[in-house]
Amino acid sequence: MIYGHGDDIYNYKNIRINFSSNVNPQGINTGLQEHLKSCIARLNAYPEPLAENLARRIEQQKGLSPGSVLITNGAVEAFYILASLFQKKKSLIYTPSFSEYEDACKMYKHNIEFCSNSLFLEKNEKPFDLVWICNPNNPDGKTFNKKILKEKIQQNPNTLFVIDEAYVEFLNKNISLQNEVSKYTNLVVVRSFTKRFSIPGLRLGYLVCPPELITNLRKKLMPWRINSLALEAGLYCFSNNYNDDFQVSEILTESQRFQIEIAQIKGFEVIPSETSFFLVKGPVNAGKLKKKLAGEYKILIRDASNFRGLSEFHFRLSTQLPDKNNELLKVLKTWSC
Amino acid sequence: MIYGHGDDIYNYKNIRINFSSNVNPQGINTGLQEHLKSCIARLNAYPEPLAENLARRIEQQKGLSPGSVLITNGAVEAFYILASLFQKKKSLIYTPSFSEYEDACKMYKHNIEFCSNSLFLEKNEKPFDLVWICNPNNPDGKTFNKKILKEKIQQNPNTLFVIDEAYVEFLNKNISLQNEVSKYTNLVVVRSFTKRFSIPGLRLGYLVCPPELITNLRKKLMPWRINSLALEAGLYCFSNNYNDDFQVSEILTESQRFQIEIAQIKGFEVIPSETSFFLVKGPVNAGKLKKKLAGEYKILIRDASNFRGLSEFHFRLSTQLPDKNNELLKVLKTWSC
Repeated sequence: MIYGHGDDIYNYKNIRINFSSNVNPQGINTGLQEHLKSCIARLNAYPEPLAENLARRIEQQKGLSPGSVLITNGAVEAFYILASLFQKKKSLIYTPSFSEYEDACKMYKHNIEFCSNSLFLEKNEKPFDLVWICNPNNPDGKTFNKKILKEKIQQNPNTLFVIDEAYVEFLNKNISLQNEVSKYTNLVVVRSFTKRFSIPGLRLGYLVCPPELITNLRKKLMPWRINSLALEAGLYCFSNNYNDDFQVSEILTESQRFQIEIAQIKGFEVIPSETSFFLVKGPVNAGKLKKKLAGEYKILIRDASNFRGLSEFHFRLSTQLPDKNNELLKVLKTWSC
Repeated sequence: MIYGHGDDIYNYKNIRINFSSNVNPQGINTGLQEHLKSCIARLNAYPEPLAENLARRIEQQKGLSPGSVLITNGAVEAFYILASLFQKKKSLIYTPSFSEYEDACKMYKHNIEFCSNSLFLEKNEKPFDLVWICNPNNPDGKTFNKKILKEKIQQNPNTLFVIDEAYVEFLNKNISLQNEVSKYTNLVVVRSFTKRFSIPGLRLGYLVCPPELITNLRKKLMPWRINSLALEAGLYCFSNNYNDDFQVSEILTESQRFQIEIAQIKGFEVIPSETSFFLVKGPVNAGKLKKKLAGEYKILIRDASNFRGLSEFHFRLSTQLPDKNNELLKVLKTWSC
């Protein structure tokens, strides 16, 4: 899907508050910003063709097997490369979820079956070549149980599990399978720098999978896909000296407050989420609500009606800092009176 | 080809002078550098999914048909997207040339025929679905005659001509077909920001072709392929206020001097080039020469022996500023004594 995603701020003028994008509301680390500025003068050199230095750095920092990391042009590229390698295969996609799994599978002519994530426990993955799971899930914040996921991966060795962990840092518990990849031959974990480090503009993600699979994926790649500043950002964020000001508990506490307050407004039903973003079913068409909020209040929300399985009334909010959340609460409360 | 290109500076320590990359030796415009620094704080927003704003800006600035420009993740992506759309077709590649045409065609299972560019005048392109031409050509600086190219495009309406004009600004004459695209149904011109604006690290290029072809190419694209800073650079360079300090005549005059002086050194044969880079056939293996220059003098050259049709003795030099060129001349003269 080229258009219809969140953070479509380029379509509007003077947006003041952006609830439509699930990136870290604490913004870009100031040290990282300064570092990137100092790298501008070196943009007259090509980036490393396959970003091997950053891949090795991540493996070392995270205790991953050598050769198990491949850097991607945003996490989204990982889905397209994987779909391309396994073209025409049978894919299972749990819904509602990030539409790019479906689009990547369609581009490469997969035979796709969709299954509501509410049926995860009883669903049999054996008939599928690939299973696509977002954990925690975009857009509803649902988490898939780590123990059950591992059992399913173990029990279905001929099915490749693609686990998108783009939002995994936005939880009070550790559900990541990144450090379990070496135990299986059928697990790919996809990670993003975008959300945690608040740098969607740079385009940087990576996948972790068995080195043999990376050997095959490399045959699908052109050189220089990832720009130099993205690589510099990655090396900076995975250096020993990175001074981390990420306060996940603050974000999650505020998310809970925000969800409770929205749910108290007449006509607005919140789907509870443990993470920083959540779905709301409103009293009016979400597209109209979005347009009104953007036009009258310069507030941007994510119309979620185009997620498979959701209705025209669903929209998604990503928790911002408290004063910004309060502004939206005030507007919605006024309307519901 | 992932490895084996020029500008492999990441493989060496403390390179002082880099002759291996054909980018503008005058470096990055200082105004552009300042502008990019001012954009760092906005990297917390996603880039526009298909970079439409920049595409429209280029069309307006260059007088191109609306909808005829597609922005790419470096010019190299254009070759892969085109090869992907026309997979399994019959391609003619003039050699020696940039290896990515061949690699893109191989990835998408084209039936490839190679033809020396010395046979361009008499070659019949009719049997081919696609013809790949670099003008001026990398690595030898050869230019293909504009009038003859246009005749061939006209006479072969069922053959798509892909003309890579990455270096077209580095000439004292105008051979570009960019503004001729709307006259044909079978012409694609690929352009690069990398060389002219000296920003290979950012990854930005574009192609110009009939809008109907772009409609088909878009089906092959994921969103957000091009990072925000690249888009900002593009908008800046194509703004009305862009203060251009590009002195092509200075570069070309120096290139002629550099070529003549190299040719006067015993054992070094220069293939004359009208542009800023040129091939040299040296007295020793180019790989060994490269290693020695990098190790002992921290000077990087492009071993050109891996270009189809060239020998183990060929290397490529991109003209730098005079004092840097003189350093290489001094070293080579010492060796030839």
